[in-house]
Amino acid sequence: MRISIVGITGYSGLELVRLIHSHNHLEVVSIHATQSTGTKLSEIYPHLKGICDLVIKPFDARYIMKHADLVVFATPSGIASQLSSYFINYKFPVVDISGDHRLPPDDYQLWYKKEAVSLDIQEQFTYSLPEFSNIKNQKFISNPGCYATAVELALIPLVKDKLIQLDSIIVDAKSGLSGAGKNPTTTSHFVNINNNYITYKLNEHQHIPEILQMLKKYDKNLQNIQFSTSLIPVNRGIISTIYCKLNSDIHPSKIKLSYDSAYKDKYFIRIVNNMPQLTDVIGSNFVNIGFKYKKSMNILTIMVALDNLIKGASGQALQNINLMYGFDETEGLRTLPSIV
Amino acid sequence: MRISIVGITGYSGLELVRLIHSHNHLEVVSIHATQSTGTKLSEIYPHLKGICDLVIKPFDARYIMKHADLVVFATPSGIASQLSSYFINYKFPVVDISGDHRLPPDDYQLWYKKEAVSLDIQEQFTYSLPEFSNIKNQKFISNPGCYATAVELALIPLVKDKLIQLDSIIVDAKSGLSGAGKNPTTTSHFVNINNNYITYKLNEHQHIPEILQMLKKYDKNLQNIQFSTSLIPVNRGIISTIYCKLNSDIHPSKIKLSYDSAYKDKYFIRIVNNMPQLTDVIGSNFVNIGFKYKKSMNILTIMVALDNLIKGASGQALQNINLMYGFDETEGLRTLPSIV
Amino acid sequence: MRISIVGITGYSGLELVRLIHSHNHLEVVSIHATQSTGTKLSEIYPHLKGICDLVIKPFDARYIMKHADLVVFATPSGIASQLSSYFINYKFPVVDISGDHRLPPDDYQLWYKKEAVSLDIQEQFTYSLPEFSNIKNQKFISNPGCYATAVELALIPLVKDKLIQLDSIIVDAKSGLSGAGKNPTTTSHFVNINNNYITYKLNEHQHIPEILQMLKKYDKNLQNIQFSTSLIPVNRGIISTIYCKLNSDIHPSKIKLSYDSAYKDKYFIRIVNNMPQLTDVIGSNFVNIGFKYKKSMNILTIMVALDNLIKGASGQALQNINLMYGFDETEGLRTLPSIV
Amino acid sequence: MRISIVGITGYSGLELVRLIHSHNHLEVVSIHATQSTGTKLSEIYPHLKGICDLVIKPFDARYIMKHADLVVFATPSGIASQLSSYFINYKFPVVDISGDHRLPPDDYQLWYKKEAVSLDIQEQFTYSLPEFSNIKNQKFISNPGCYATAVELALIPLVKDKLIQLDSIIVDAKSGLSGAGKNPTTTSHFVNINNNYITYKLNEHQHIPEILQMLKKYDKNLQNIQFSTSLIPVNRGIISTIYCKLNSDIHPSKIKLSYDSAYKDKYFIRIVNNMPQLTDVIGSNFVNIGFKYKKSMNILTIMVALDNLIKGASGQALQNINLMYGFDETEGLRTLPSIV
Repeated sequence: MRISIVGITGYSGLELVRLIHSHNHLEVVSIHATQSTGTKLSEIYPHLKGICDLVIKPFDARYIMKHADLVVFATPSGIASQLSSYFINYKFPVVDISGDHRLPPDDYQLWYKKEAVSLDIQEQFTYSLPEFSNIKNQKFISNPGCYATAVELALIPLVKDKLIQLDSIIVDAKSGLSGAGKNPTTTSHFVNINNNYITYKLNEHQHIPEILQMLKKYDKNLQNIQFSTSLIPVNRGIISTIYCKLNSDIHPSKIKLSYDSAYKDKYFIRIVNNMPQLTDVIGSNFVNIGFKYKKSMNILTIMVALDNLIKGASGQALQNINLMYGFDETEGLRTLPSIV
Repeated sequence: MRISIVGITGYSGLELVRLIHSHNHLEVVSIHATQSTGTKLSEIYPHLKGICDLVIKPFDARYIMKHADLVVFATPSGIASQLSSYFINYKFPVVDISGDHRLPPDDYQLWYKKEAVSLDIQEQFTYSLPEFSNIKNQKFISNPGCYATAVELALIPLVKDKLIQLDSIIVDAKSGLSGAGKNPTTTSHFVNINNNYITYKLNEHQHIPEILQMLKKYDKNLQNIQFSTSLIPVNRGIISTIYCKLNSDIHPSKIKLSYDSAYKDKYFIRIVNNMPQLTDVIGSNFVNIGFKYKKSMNILTIMVALDNLIKGASGQALQNINLMYGFDETEGLRTLPSIV
Repeated sequence: MRISIVGITGYSGLELVRLIHSHNHLEVVSIHATQSTGTKLSEIYPHLKGICDLVIKPFDARYIMKHADLVVFATPSGIASQLSSYFINYKFPVVDISGDHRLPPDDYQLWYKKEAVSLDIQEQFTYSLPEFSNIKNQKFISNPGCYATAVELALIPLVKDKLIQLDSIIVDAKSGLSGAGKNPTTTSHFVNINNNYITYKLNEHQHIPEILQMLKKYDKNLQNIQFSTSLIPVNRGIISTIYCKLNSDIHPSKIKLSYDSAYKDKYFIRIVNNMPQLTDVIGSNFVNIGFKYKKSMNILTIMVALDNLIKGASGQALQNINLMYGFDETEGLRTLPSIV
Repeated sequence: MRISIVGITGYSGLELVRLIHSHNHLEVVSIHATQSTGTKLSEIYPHLKGICDLVIKPFDARYIMKHADLVVFATPSGIASQLSSYFINYKFPVVDISGDHRLPPDDYQLWYKKEAVSLDIQEQFTYSLPEFSNIKNQKFISNPGCYATAVELALIPLVKDKLIQLDSIIVDAKSGLSGAGKNPTTTSHFVNINNNYITYKLNEHQHIPEILQMLKKYDKNLQNIQFSTSLIPVNRGIISTIYCKLNSDIHPSKIKLSYDSAYKDKYFIRIVNNMPQLTDVIGSNFVNIGFKYKKSMNILTIMVALDNLIKGASGQALQNINLMYGFDETEGLRTLPSIV
């Protein structure tokens, strides 16, 4: 199968090239960007020398539809929304890693402060968190956000099984810098991040409506969550600490049962005995989830860790492609995490 | 005034030497440890070459009482408890940076898993968070813990002014590695901490009873808090995110008033408009506190940042000494934070 | 093919497990260590949960020879030397990642300060830098050291082609902390390494005789090199800057020709146009080499980068196993570097 | 004494504010920049809240000459060159931390690729490395560059005393990111620097002519040096490894004598017994120099470490101001390094 990637020079694009290199059935046939067009990818990125010597092309829908079987948008928000209609009209398969097709237009404009796709187009996309979707033979996939993937995987089983008080959810999420994108800013300057801990967009992060929309599918009574997002001085990874209260009469043993039942056949989700560390998953598509209940305060603490560029972006996109086309779900995604 | 430091080779001891070097009225006259005795401090620590060429001595209470005016314990827990009685019997001034005199024996043994000082001795010590104590002419001071200092400064005004629901307090605290001490362990190995985020001792940290004991002085109805402690890949600093609910009928504007009233004359406590970053305080004795209220969930988020070796340990000890002896509170503590 | 790993709890052992997981023809059948025996590997290392649930066994040569086809020593120096004879007597294949079989006994004892294997045993081992060895059907392989691999790959072509002055070689090598092993020490404490740069063992590193021995094979007139080794605050990677002078009458264009000729069919060695960065190779078995000549001083600067745990240890061991048994050289080693 | 700072929002400007805060005879009376004018400095930098509440003004020579006694340029290169003439014409004291007045116009244009000041103006400035200058009552000071300070302090004594071969000098210098300035670029992005080691401007760094010009004062036969500059993942600090050969008939003991003689009365220069580590000097104006001689190759290895923002920029500027006006050389510069 032939893949075109739009937005090749961002972290998600580069990561997708890297992962597809180990995939037995996929091949990247064209790469597109607005910058560095006409240059070989490996000239800008010597780590890909001898691996991906494709020349970066400007975006060209006709070229893509002629030479590829599927297009992946690995673009910053506000780009895929302008370009996806070309492909939808021709029923040409699209996976959008960006947030442009995750929310109805009103929500999108409110949280992203950018022009949204039409509701008609947005509704043709399936929001696919692979552990909770069925996308065999679907054509248009909206890939979940990195923070959203972590929080949804930690909470869906508990919300679905009515174990927790819906108005008690507090998420304290931490992310590495690659999550903030590749554009150099004052915030992303090494000197600002090294030795530092920065909380940003408190209760204003654009993944909030995405999480609420997803959790509401499992219990429509959920109204809101507290959501803190912070930058820690690491390149990769998201680790979220989630606090919530159990419903009355819920025995704490139900938590483990709920997770086990939800994830028993899900290769990438691992329920661990202790609180996960960030490096337990880095470099892989795995998600580690741990939890602990404090009876005296009726507080359940959940921690969930994933690699934001793999399970939080390009790895999950590849997992979705595997599911769309009936490949083995782990194809191209078998590299193990490394704690070093 | 002449100071002896016991536990010179730990981070708190070294930091105290560094700070006292800028103090106009204090001089370090003897330094003690169990390791490296007989060696010049500057031979082990070339950064002190030409600055502190004192020879490390074994502990010797008689020597200290003869040559110094005050002894500071900068020892790991379990040491000062065995040694303080020598000085107390002679009414010789002691400042204990370790946790050995902060808690009644039962609590100490439960949380520290070590033998406690007698209740009689412990009660002779004043637990002094300088912004809330009056220790002029006191002789025996127990210096607060690093996490405890942060949480107490953030919560005392709100608890005292009955603004928050006492059973709603969730503390998500992050610390740099110097807080875990100088002893090399598997956890403190560079490879384990770099690129990582590790939560440890969830709801089991020994600063919990210290915080509860202090907050109960301001409202005895407080029972418990949720307390998460995590290691982030930085050398210095503590930053705590605290979530709690306002009492009914409390207008959010009361929060700022409460803080301003508590800290208007307190040089080292700064209430800031945005959430503090860790580096805003590193290298200094300052504490920055910021907060934000989310009405829809009635959740107040407070963030508090300090340098764990300065305001969280040796700087606060120096501040306490300044107050004991009537020096200017900021003497020796005027170095500004550096964001680089 | 079935592999036993001795020294499973060190970085090289864990990395080998990780890499073999992607190898189509190898399987780890037993893992051995002196610590944590009787415990599942994945209990100590949750990142391997569901991946490697083997129980750690004490060393047992008979068990290994019965259940495996090859044993890899991933032990600290001084261990394999005591254990390899069991296997050699039975002609059972051994790959030693440690330095115990690289040097004749006299040299070993001088530089490693440990008891050496007998000359008889040492001579049965082939020191195999895969790009310059032919080990098809060999049984006993001594794997090169991490610094040595970098320096040898950078210098062999130039020494062999008589391009450089043999008494002019200055190596300024930098390494990440995983190279110093997993044992917690004062040096490896996070606080000592973070924000720091430490030069150690100047002209005293045990890889010096290994490098000299190898380069002398290509020109026996080489006598000595200047060799600086430093720790930089990263987990993985070695990057060496090498300075040397060209022989008179050598045109600088010969350098590129020499490298191209040496490495044109070597998949893992990449000659790049600019100076390599460390992250260009991290996570992969690739080695990037760049160089620049300054005519006014007749100084050639060469930089070489590799991942010390992959090409500098376990990846190279796997590459050697591939060559011993005629597998594709890249089997299990196709993961690409990631610059994030 | 009243100081105006031009270029307040860069690292050197902020560091100067921080250092002057501890100086008993200096006061910052106005701060100037092209960005953020009209804003209080402490609004942009909360770490200075309550410390420096001055409002940032646009550059205004007349205002400065009226309200201050000396102006410091802490600007990027290419700014002070355009502005210094205002002050020179009125004999108003200037200290330029930038490189704009260090080189004759031809050299400046060649290496900085920017328009130079006139030779007439440049010659009115004294290049002052305080340990080797006499600037009492001088009015126009050009402050040395960070790399240049390190290399010059390490080499001047040896060059002056004719100990080393002038054509053998190889400098392998490493710097933290603050040395590259505050402007966000692709290179300074956290993700590019963390876990990385990047060599840049090999033999092309603009401090080369500054070093050559200074060393030639001590031996005009010196022609050139090899000069490598690399970025390491730390915020602050420069550490240079220098290789050179001793002249024939020079006994190695001469090296220590040379350094001791040059620096015996120089408070900030410390000759240490082992190779310095970077953190031995960070946070202070100290410079640590260590060395080791390898007889078999006649190679002397020197290492020199300093804090690039203090001794390499603003601290040295303050030291120069102290010397210009006859204050104690260490005034405002007594903060000790911290190894944590």
